[in-house]
Amino acid sequence: MGGESLVLTHDTMVEGVHVLEGQDPADIAWKLVAVNLSDLAAKGADPVGVLISHMLGSDDHRFVKGLDDVLGTYDVPLLGGDTVRGEGHGVWGCTAIGRATHNPAPSRAGARAGDSIYVTGALGAAMIGFEALRDGEDVDSSAYRRPRPLLEEGKALAPHVSAMMDVSDGLLLDCWRMASASGRVAFELQSAAIPVAAPSRFDECIRWGDDYQLLFTAPADLDLPVVATRIGSVVTADHAELRLDGEALTPEDGLGYQH
Amino acid sequence: MGGESLVLTHDTMVEGVHVLEGQDPADIAWKLVAVNLSDLAAKGADPVGVLISHMLGSDDHRFVKGLDDVLGTYDVPLLGGDTVRGEGHGVWGCTAIGRATHNPAPSRAGARAGDSIYVTGALGAAMIGFEALRDGEDVDSSAYRRPRPLLEEGKALAPHVSAMMDVSDGLLLDCWRMASASGRVAFELQSAAIPVAAPSRFDECIRWGDDYQLLFTAPADLDLPVVATRIGSVVTADHAELRLDGEALTPEDGLGYQH
Repeated sequence: MGGESLVLTHDTMVEGVHVLEGQDPADIAWKLVAVNLSDLAAKGADPVGVLISHMLGSDDHRFVKGLDDVLGTYDVPLLGGDTVRGEGHGVWGCTAIGRATHNPAPSRAGARAGDSIYVTGALGAAMIGFEALRDGEDVDSSAYRRPRPLLEEGKALAPHVSAMMDVSDGLLLDCWRMASASGRVAFELQSAAIPVAAPSRFDECIRWGDDYQLLFTAPADLDLPVVATRIGSVVTADHAELRLDGEALTPEDGLGYQH
Repeated sequence: MGGESLVLTHDTMVEGVHVLEGQDPADIAWKLVAVNLSDLAAKGADPVGVLISHMLGSDDHRFVKGLDDVLGTYDVPLLGGDTVRGEGHGVWGCTAIGRATHNPAPSRAGARAGDSIYVTGALGAAMIGFEALRDGEDVDSSAYRRPRPLLEEGKALAPHVSAMMDVSDGLLLDCWRMASASGRVAFELQSAAIPVAAPSRFDECIRWGDDYQLLFTAPADLDLPVVATRIGSVVTADHAELRLDGEALTPEDGLGYQH
């Protein structure tokens, strides 16, 4: 548009599906916006603003508080939206509009044989947070309640990566999707290299999702502009494949959260 | 953005609130997109595309059919969105992205004393359609089920109007909103001049809404580029006012559909 690339994303959250029933609306508002900003981050885009759809409920002032928190933290304007009446489970939507800072914006389709595979942060933190919140444990649940979109990291990476996406539905599933989108490549992951928040529950950590870390591929000799961990490499294959410690995995093996 | 003006709008629809319970999902999809395109029309904007949020239900193929119909009719691309699981009443969202064809894009705030007030089409047609559908009458209900966004009319009007909006919540309420946004003016309407679909139910027709006609103000000597009816005039006032045949009305009088 006018020589600039617009990046658009929309996510809807449903009470009892994407957030716990009865969860603090301030956390819901934060997460609603953050997961959309995370999609912009994966495109290396600067947020232009968001539109929010809010189903009126009993604690709307808390929703407004969380919205204010997240928009203030990331300096993103609220451009509009809609409030509606409704019954039953709450439903909330967010559309985020961004401006690409690098053209073409990274996609999930560009991984090439010879690239290394990287991920930021540690996986499984949201799972630990979710369980703490659900079970009322005295453990920090903020990784689940208040994920942080990696906007600065995404912009720094955008000019250098061959493919990028955020890990929303589990590392293995999102690696599979990136390999599938990229074509005739296999993603070979080494489990010993994958950073997780709970090593004793490794298999769950790499499948659970909701961490909103950045998964990306880049030439093996790239000096990374952000802190990230090399978790494997991309190799040539007859068709898209995902291998963990040499073992081929497919979506039938339960790679992540499908919804 | 890049020297162009982006127009963004989002509407959410809830089963039992904005559409009848059990209504054909094809009509829901049509209306969902059409009401957002109508918002673009009121800004004189060309649609760039839409994002759709769809709660999965039992007749999703019908939703897809209606989406296909409306996007094909208005030549609008589906850019993305989200599908979610959910229980209870259906909830659907649409974000429409447009490009202003005239800068500044018309707002509801520009009505000036001396302007004439116009509306396209006849009001109350959606009300008649709604009742026919609800009661299973053998009467055309398409005005309610499949409203037509006036995109061409909006673009033709944009360079000439002082204020414009679509009539979504009732003529009187939307006139009140336009007067309020414009400041120290009174909107003086003549009931004999207002075109309605059911003259015997005049009072309801000018309050019911959902017609998605264009309401606009323009200099009294303008040669209109579209077919519209002059329904009154804007005069100077100490504060925003709405008068029908000389009688002042306020939102407490029940001007339209507040939701």
